[in-house]
Amino acid sequence: MPRSTRRRPALVHPAVEEIDLYDVLHALSDPTRMTIVRVLRSEPERACGTFPVDVAPSTLSHHFKVLRESGVISQREEANRRFSALRTVELERRFPGLLDTVLAALARNEPGGEFGEQSGDEPGAEPAWHG
Amino acid sequence: MPRSTRRRPALVHPAVEEIDLYDVLHALSDPTRMTIVRVLRSEPERACGTFPVDVAPSTLSHHFKVLRESGVISQREEANRRFSALRTVELERRFPGLLDTVLAALARNEPGGEFGEQSGDEPGAEPAWHG
Repeated sequence: MPRSTRRRPALVHPAVEEIDLYDVLHALSDPTRMTIVRVLRSEPERACGTFPVDVAPSTLSHHFKVLRESGVISQREEANRRFSALRTVELERRFPGLLDTVLAALARNEPGGEFGEQSGDEPGAEPAWHG
Repeated sequence: MPRSTRRRPALVHPAVEEIDLYDVLHALSDPTRMTIVRVLRSEPERACGTFPVDVAPSTLSHHFKVLRESGVISQREEANRRFSALRTVELERRFPGLLDTVLAALARNEPGGEFGEQSGDEPGAEPAWHG
């Protein structure tokens, strides 16, 4: 939510009611984009060139565009820098619990994540229907 | 879980610990595939040609393959028919709450879904941070 609109960048942001579930799921289905989301989960905003991702600038721009146009992040420009922020409140309003559930799933997905730290739960060939 | 493996189709099913979050999110990011998932949520299994989707058979085969290889559904063949089932228990074990949260989000995403039946909540231009 920029306080000043003097310099308005041509950045597309869907309104909260326009945020589409399929677009959001697609946006979250990529490791680089998910890294951006995870980093933004813990800070209010961040300059675009400062994310811990190892991709070409043009690729990174594409990822930011997918995230922005899906409604997952907002972006603003200031002094030749572009800042990104997670649209946490709006996402929660649109799809309650979705972002948190996906991020919890992400922690289980990664080597060294919850499965790596807990022992004996996963991976296991044993069906755990009894659990 | 086929009781007999006499006739084993060449169908790829990842083990529960191999189910990848990005693959699952990608599988769920398509309306046709989501329709299949939603239908399977309420019945144990279903023959592949009987889903209420309007796509060409080759396209439908592709969608089933994406769902199966991502670990979202299992498939088995019997008497020249292929049956699909949601891997509900395994998905819940791998990513707790994910499927239910996504399906709840789907209900909010669709015209005539929860937003359509409830009035005055959405869509609204009013920011609902106060809600």
